[in-house]
Amino acid sequence: MRSSTPAESVLTVRIDAAVIAAHYAQLNRMGGDTTNGFDRPAYSHEETRVMLYFSQCAEACGLSHRVDAIGNLIIETTSISGQWIETGSHVDTVPGGGNYDGLAGVVAGFEALKAIRHSIRTLKHGLRLRIWRGEESAAFGIASIGSRAAFGQLPPASLSMTCRGKTLADAMTDQGINPNIIEQGRPAIATDELDSINAYIELHIEQGKVLESQLREIGIVTAIRGSRRSWVSLRGTFDHSGATPMGCDYRHDCNLAMAHMHVRLDQLLQKHITDGIDLVQTIGVINSHSGMSKKLTIDNNAVSKVSGAAFFSFEVRGCKADKVAAYHEQAEKLIHQTAAEFGITAAIETFSDQSGIAALDKPLQQQISRTCDSLKLDHMLMASGAWHDAGTMAQQRRTDGNHIPVGMIFIPCRDRAIALKS
Amino acid sequence: MRSSTPAESVLTVRIDAAVIAAHYAQLNRMGGDTTNGFDRPAYSHEETRVMLYFSQCAEACGLSHRVDAIGNLIIETTSISGQWIETGSHVDTVPGGGNYDGLAGVVAGFEALKAIRHSIRTLKHGLRLRIWRGEESAAFGIASIGSRAAFGQLPPASLSMTCRGKTLADAMTDQGINPNIIEQGRPAIATDELDSINAYIELHIEQGKVLESQLREIGIVTAIRGSRRSWVSLRGTFDHSGATPMGCDYRHDCNLAMAHMHVRLDQLLQKHITDGIDLVQTIGVINSHSGMSKKLTIDNNAVSKVSGAAFFSFEVRGCKADKVAAYHEQAEKLIHQTAAEFGITAAIETFSDQSGIAALDKPLQQQISRTCDSLKLDHMLMASGAWHDAGTMAQQRRTDGNHIPVGMIFIPCRDRAIALKS
Repeated sequence: MRSSTPAESVLTVRIDAAVIAAHYAQLNRMGGDTTNGFDRPAYSHEETRVMLYFSQCAEACGLSHRVDAIGNLIIETTSISGQWIETGSHVDTVPGGGNYDGLAGVVAGFEALKAIRHSIRTLKHGLRLRIWRGEESAAFGIASIGSRAAFGQLPPASLSMTCRGKTLADAMTDQGINPNIIEQGRPAIATDELDSINAYIELHIEQGKVLESQLREIGIVTAIRGSRRSWVSLRGTFDHSGATPMGCDYRHDCNLAMAHMHVRLDQLLQKHITDGIDLVQTIGVINSHSGMSKKLTIDNNAVSKVSGAAFFSFEVRGCKADKVAAYHEQAEKLIHQTAAEFGITAAIETFSDQSGIAALDKPLQQQISRTCDSLKLDHMLMASGAWHDAGTMAQQRRTDGNHIPVGMIFIPCRDRAIALKS
Repeated sequence: MRSSTPAESVLTVRIDAAVIAAHYAQLNRMGGDTTNGFDRPAYSHEETRVMLYFSQCAEACGLSHRVDAIGNLIIETTSISGQWIETGSHVDTVPGGGNYDGLAGVVAGFEALKAIRHSIRTLKHGLRLRIWRGEESAAFGIASIGSRAAFGQLPPASLSMTCRGKTLADAMTDQGINPNIIEQGRPAIATDELDSINAYIELHIEQGKVLESQLREIGIVTAIRGSRRSWVSLRGTFDHSGATPMGCDYRHDCNLAMAHMHVRLDQLLQKHITDGIDLVQTIGVINSHSGMSKKLTIDNNAVSKVSGAAFFSFEVRGCKADKVAAYHEQAEKLIHQTAAEFGITAAIETFSDQSGIAALDKPLQQQISRTCDSLKLDHMLMASGAWHDAGTMAQQRRTDGNHIPVGMIFIPCRDRAIALKS
C-alpha cells in the first residue's frame, strides 16, 4: 500500500509507510537470534509470539480478535450483510527465512483493515484478517497446516510428522492447542462461517524474480502451481574405478545414469515449455540426507568406486493437475528407459502430490487490475509458482456449491530477500 | 598355480590345491566378524594377525623370516648369487573386502617359494616374499603405505592421516612399529638390499571383469594405471523451486550444471578412448560426505529449492602420466565452461596425483607368456587398472641406474568376489 492520487473509479485509502515500518521495528526482533534470517517454525513459541503481537495490535485499536481451534488468529470488523471480505497470510518462516514471506501480507492486511474501517463508516460487508499457522512445509513436511486443518482437510497422519524431534501433535499441545480436532477430522471453520466468506484476497511477496526482472510493481495471480514430489532411487553395481573398463558392458554406474536422466528430463521439460505448457521441474537433492524425510543409503559410494547406488528428489510443479500427471508419466518412462540403458534399476516413490489451482477468480483479477491502473502501478498477470494459503481457500465450496472467490496480489520482495519456502 | 604336464622349456613345480585351501581355512577367520566381508585396515591388529600367521608358516617349514622397520614381513631363502627373485603382495583389506585381494598373491607366493625350494636344490638366485603393510588407500587415504615407506618415499605428513579416529603414527605404534623412520624419511630397505633385488613378480586377482568376460585364465600386466583425484565444488544460487522459472536466466542450478558436466565429461572420455588413449574416469561421490576427506557444505539443498551448491569427486586413471595430465586439463576447461554457461562457479582441487607405470618389464612379460603357453593357460596382455605394490617396486632404481624389473600376473577372482580397493 502506498499513498496515491485518488481516482474516480477507486476509493483510495492512505496508509502511512511509517506505520508499516513501526510494525517491522517490533517484528524484526521475533524469530530466533535473527542474525542469519528468521526462524519461526509452525506451532513454535516464535510463531505464537507474532500471533500475540497482532492480538495486542487488534486490542489496541478496538478490533475484535479470536483464535480458532487450530490456533489461527482472526481479526475482524462487524458486518451488516453477514458477509465478510477476507484477507490473510501466515507468520511462520523456513529456517533462516526472510521476514516478508507471509508477514508482508499480514501487516498489509491488518493496516488495510484498519484504514478501510477508518475511511468508510458504513461498510456493506465486514472485513476479516486470518493469520494462518504453519504455511511452510519446511517444518513438518506439510504445507498450509493451519488453513487445511481449519477446513478439516489435514490428514490425521500429519500429527505424527516431526520437526526437530517433536511431533506436530506435541508442538500444537505446547502452544495450547488440542490436536484432537485434527484427529477427528473436524473443521475449525463451521459451515455458517464458511458461507459468510464473500471473497478472500491474499497479498504476498513474489518468491521468484519475475516482477523484479520485468520491472513490474504488482503481479496479479491467475493460478497457483501445485507440486508432485518423488524420490527416485537407483541401484547398480559397485566396481573398482580403475580396474573396470568404461562403458555399460562393464559399468552399471548409478551416478552416470543419474546425470543422463537429469539432462534428458531437462530436455523433456524444455520441449513442454516450448509447447506452451506451464511446468517447472527441480532436482534439488542428490545423494544427500539433508532435508530428507527418508534415509536412502549411498554409504558405500567412494571416490575410487563406480557408484552402485544413487538417489534424487524429483519435483514437478504446475497449475493444472492433469498436465502435471501427464508430464510425470513421461518422466517416469524416461527414467526407467535410461536406467535400463545403463544396466541399473530405478524405483520412483511419490511422497507428496498437491493439485494446483488452475484458475483464481477472474472478476477479482479484473478488479485488482483496474485498481492498479487507477493507482498507476505497473502490473502483470502471472501464475504463482509457490503454494499459498489462498490455494486452500480456493479449494473450498460454500453450501451454495460455489467456490469462494479468491485473488492474490504479488509484490516484489525488498532487496530480493526471497524467503525460500515450499 | 596348478598341477600340469611338464613342458620342455619350463620347469614345472606342482602345488596341491589342498595346500592353498588349508591356508584359507585359517585365513577366512581373520578379519573382523567376516559375515559381511573382511575388515583388515592398514596397521590393525587384524593385519598383524595375518602377518603372524605367515611368520609361523615360515617357521614351521624352516624358512627364514624377518620384519622390516615399517612392519613388512619378509620370508626368504638364502642366495648363492647374492641376488633374489622376489614376489609379494599385501594382506590388508578395504572394509567389507574380499579375502583374495592381496592375500591370493601372498598365499601363492609363499607356496611357490616352498615348492621351488623343494624342487630345485641349487637355486642360482634366492627367493624372497615381501608381505607389505597397508596397500589399500581406504584406511588412511594413502595407497601402498608399506612399500612406499620401505623405500623412504612416504611423505612424513602421511603420519597424521587418520583411520577411524586414529592417526597412522598411532596405528603403527600400536603394532609395535616406530613411526620415526617415516618422520625422518629413511628407507627400511638399505641400498645393498635394493641392489640385491633381481626381479619382482606379483600375482594379484584382476579387480575388473576383463578376464572373466573374455574367458581368459591369466592376464599379463603390461602397465599400471596411476590416478589423479580431485574435488569439484560448485556454487550457484538457492531459489524457490516453484516460483523461479526454468532456464539459466532465472536459475543458477548447481545440480543441473553438474549433470551436464558429467554427461559432457563422459563424451570427452569416450572420444579419447576412440582415439586409442587408455583412460578411465569415475565420478564416485556426489553431494555426500561418505568417504570424504573434506567436508563440503550442501546442507541448504532441499527438495523445494533450486540447488545453490553441489560437489563431486573426479578421478582419472591412466598408465601414462602425460596423457592423464593432458586429459585433466581438457576436463577442467569443460567443467569451467559448463559452469559459466549455467551461471555458477566451479572450483577444482586435486588432492591426490599418483603417476602410473607406463611399462612393466618386457622380458618378464615374455617369460610369463611362454610359461602360460607351456602350461596351456589362456592368457592376454592387459594394463592393470588398479594400483599395486608392484608399481612402487617398478619406480625404484638400483645403484647401477637401472629400474628393478617388475612383472605382474593377474588371475580372475573366484565367483567374481571382487574386493573393491583403491
